Amino acid sequence: MSNLLKVKTDFLQIDSLSLHSGKTLSPVNIAYETYGELNKNKNNAILVFHALSGSQHAAGLNKFAPSEFWSEENHVGWWDEFIGPGKIIDTNKFFVICGNCLGGCYGSTGPSSINLKTKKPYGGSFPKLTLTDLVYAQKKLVDHFGIATLHAVIGGSLGGMEALEYMLHYPVNKIISIGSCARMSTLNKIMNFEQIFAIEEDHDFNKGDYYDGNPPVKGLQLARMIAHKTYVDVVSLEQRARGEIIQEESDLKLYELMHRIESYMLHQGKKFVKRFDANTYLWIVQAIQSFNLARQYGNGDLKKAFARLTGKQINILIISISSDVSFYPEEQQEIVEALNHNKIPNTYVMVGSDKGHDSFLLEPEKYLSIREFLEN
Amino acid sequence: MSNLLKVKTDFLQIDSLSLHSGKTLSPVNIAYETYGELNKNKNNAILVFHALSGSQHAAGLNKFAPSEFWSEENHVGWWDEFIGPGKIIDTNKFFVICGNCLGGCYGSTGPSSINLKTKKPYGGSFPKLTLTDLVYAQKKLVDHFGIATLHAVIGGSLGGMEALEYMLHYPVNKIISIGSCARMSTLNKIMNFEQIFAIEEDHDFNKGDYYDGNPPVKGLQLARMIAHKTYVDVVSLEQRARGEIIQEESDLKLYELMHRIESYMLHQGKKFVKRFDANTYLWIVQAIQSFNLARQYGNGDLKKAFARLTGKQINILIISISSDVSFYPEEQQEIVEALNHNKIPNTYVMVGSDKGHDSFLLEPEKYLSIREFLEN
Repeated sequence: MSNLLKVKTDFLQIDSLSLHSGKTLSPVNIAYETYGELNKNKNNAILVFHALSGSQHAAGLNKFAPSEFWSEENHVGWWDEFIGPGKIIDTNKFFVICGNCLGGCYGSTGPSSINLKTKKPYGGSFPKLTLTDLVYAQKKLVDHFGIATLHAVIGGSLGGMEALEYMLHYPVNKIISIGSCARMSTLNKIMNFEQIFAIEEDHDFNKGDYYDGNPPVKGLQLARMIAHKTYVDVVSLEQRARGEIIQEESDLKLYELMHRIESYMLHQGKKFVKRFDANTYLWIVQAIQSFNLARQYGNGDLKKAFARLTGKQINILIISISSDVSFYPEEQQEIVEALNHNKIPNTYVMVGSDKGHDSFLLEPEKYLSIREFLEN
Repeated sequence: MSNLLKVKTDFLQIDSLSLHSGKTLSPVNIAYETYGELNKNKNNAILVFHALSGSQHAAGLNKFAPSEFWSEENHVGWWDEFIGPGKIIDTNKFFVICGNCLGGCYGSTGPSSINLKTKKPYGGSFPKLTLTDLVYAQKKLVDHFGIATLHAVIGGSLGGMEALEYMLHYPVNKIISIGSCARMSTLNKIMNFEQIFAIEEDHDFNKGDYYDGNPPVKGLQLARMIAHKTYVDVVSLEQRARGEIIQEESDLKLYELMHRIESYMLHQGKKFVKRFDANTYLWIVQAIQSFNLARQYGNGDLKKAFARLTGKQINILIISISSDVSFYPEEQQEIVEALNHNKIPNTYVMVGSDKGHDSFLLEPEKYLSIREFLEN
C-alpha cells in the first residue's frame, strides 16, 4: 500500500487504424497515462474515457507538455480527486489507463497532427470519426498491455457514451457511465449544430486548414459558450449574478452595462481557446452528433441493441445527476430500461446535486457508489 | 358590422425623440398599420406590440413593401387569426394599432435608415435603445390619434414585456401579456449574449457599418437558430426527425448524414436573414438584454416596481404557455405574484399546448380568454 500515485506517461504507436468510414489512418499515436500497477493476472485494469474537452491527464501532476495546446505545466489531472491511492478509483488496487481520444489535440493523432505524406498538418483533410472509432483506438491501449478482459470501463459525459459503446464490442466486467446517453437528443443535436456552425463559419476557419494562419478563435469561443451553459447550474449563476448586478449597476446607465453573466461566459470561452484546437473540437462534436446506439446496433430500438449483451458476464452502473441539463436523467433512465428489458445486471444511482452536469468533476464525495461498485 | 377588415398603412413622423440614454434621435419615422375604426369617444383603441422578429403588419394582406427587408408582397399578417371582424380581437368593436418598433427594419427608423446628417445609413452609429424607448415611440402613435386612455395593450414575447412596461408609464385600462417576463432570466441573457456574439463577431459585421458591403448573414443565421430552438417544441421535432432519420439513413453511412434536424434549423436561419436586418436584430436583443422592471422601477424588487400601479384603474391578463421554454411559466407567475402582492386586479391563464412558445402565433382557439377579457 502506498500513498504515492504511480504515474506513467507514454504514446502508443499504431501502424494503421481502420476507421468506421472504411478509410485508414496511418500511422496513429495515442497519448496516454497510467496510474497504479497492472497485476500479474492482468485483471485489475480500468479504462477511463475523458469528456469532450478533457485529456489523458486524469490524475496527478503532468510531467511534460505533449502538444502545443498543453500550455500549463504541472497542472492537476481532471479527475485527480477520483483517481489515486485510497481514492474512489483506488490505484493501490487498480491499474488505470486513460488515453487522449483519437482526433485529440493533446498528443494523440488528430487534425493538428502532421500528415507524413504531405509533411503538413492534416487540417480539413483529417478523416471524419465516429465514437466507434474513438473507442476502437482506446481498445488498442488495452491490447498493448495484453489485457484480455478489463475490470472496468468508466467515463462521464462523452466518456460515458464511449463506455456504453465499449461494452457492445469488447470484453469487460463492469461499466460505469455517468451523465451520458445512448443516443443524442434532438436538443443536443441542435446545440451541437450551433457549435459546428459557429466554428465552420468563422472567417478564419478556412475549411480546417488554418494552422499556418489564424485559428478560428471566435467560432471556438462561441461554441464553448453555447456548450458551457449546459454544464453548470444556471440558477446558482443567476442568483450570484443578480446580486452582483444590483450592487454594481446603481450608478450605471442600463445600456452601458456589460452584464456580469456575459463576462462570465466570455471568460469561459477565452480560457478554452487557449488550450484546445478548434478542429479537434469540431471533429469530436461531429462524431458525437451521429452517436445513436439504438440506430447503429438495434435498428432504432435500444432494447434490441442491448440484446447483444445477453449471456455476457457484465454489470453496469448508470449514474444520473439530478440537476443535469446537458444530459437529462431521462436519457440515462432510457439506458436502464433497455438493460432491464434484457435482464442485464445493473444499478442506477441518481446523484442529488445543484452543480449540474459538471458535478461528476466537482463533487467526489457524492460518487462513493463508484468505489463500492468497482470493489464488490 | 362588417366581414371586411379595414386596414390602414401609414408612417408617423416625429421631429425628435428623447432616448433613455439621454441622446436624441431626429427625425423618427414609425411605420404602422391600423385595423377597424376609432370611435368618437376614442375609447376603443388597442395597441398591439409585435415580437422580436415581427412587424407592424399584424393582420390582413399587406399593401406595399415599406422596406427593402419586406420582400414578400401580399403576405398575411402575423396575427391575422387573432385580429379581424368577429375574431379574438374584434375589429368590429375595436380600433387596433400596431407599429414597427423603433430600431426596426420594416419602415420605422432603425440602424438601416439614412441618417439625414451624413446621408448614409446609421449602421453602428445608431443609438443604443432600451425597451423604455421602444414603448415610448409607440406611445407617440397613441398620442397621434388623440387617444387619452387605451382600452388595452397586448403583446406576446417581447411584445408582452413592452405591454408591462407600458402600464407602468401611461394610461391604459387593460393589459394582456403572453409568454413574457418582467426581467430577463440568466438563461435568456446567456442565449441573447450568444446571439450578440454571433452577429458582432461575424467577419462581415464591420461594427454595424455593412450596408455598402456584405451583411453578416452567417452571424444572423446562427443567432436565429440559437433563438428558434426555444420557440418550438423540441420533443415533437425530435419524434418527427427520428422517424425520418431511421427511414432515410438505412443506406447512408452515419458520418455522411446531414441530420434532418440540422437542415431544419439551417432552413429557419436562411429564411430569416432574407427578411431581417442584422443590426435591427442586434439592437433589439441588446435592448431586451437589459430589460428588468424590478431593477429599473423597484430597486431589484418587482413588488415595489408594481406598487406604482396602486390606485390605477387597470386590469391585467397574464398568459403562460405550458410548454414554453423561451419564457417559462415561472417567469409569468412571478409577475402575477407581484401584482397580487399589490392587490392589482389580474387574471392568470395557463394555455395547455405542446407547441411551445410559438403557440400564441399558431393556436388562436386556445386564446379565447383574450376575447372575454377585452370585451367584459
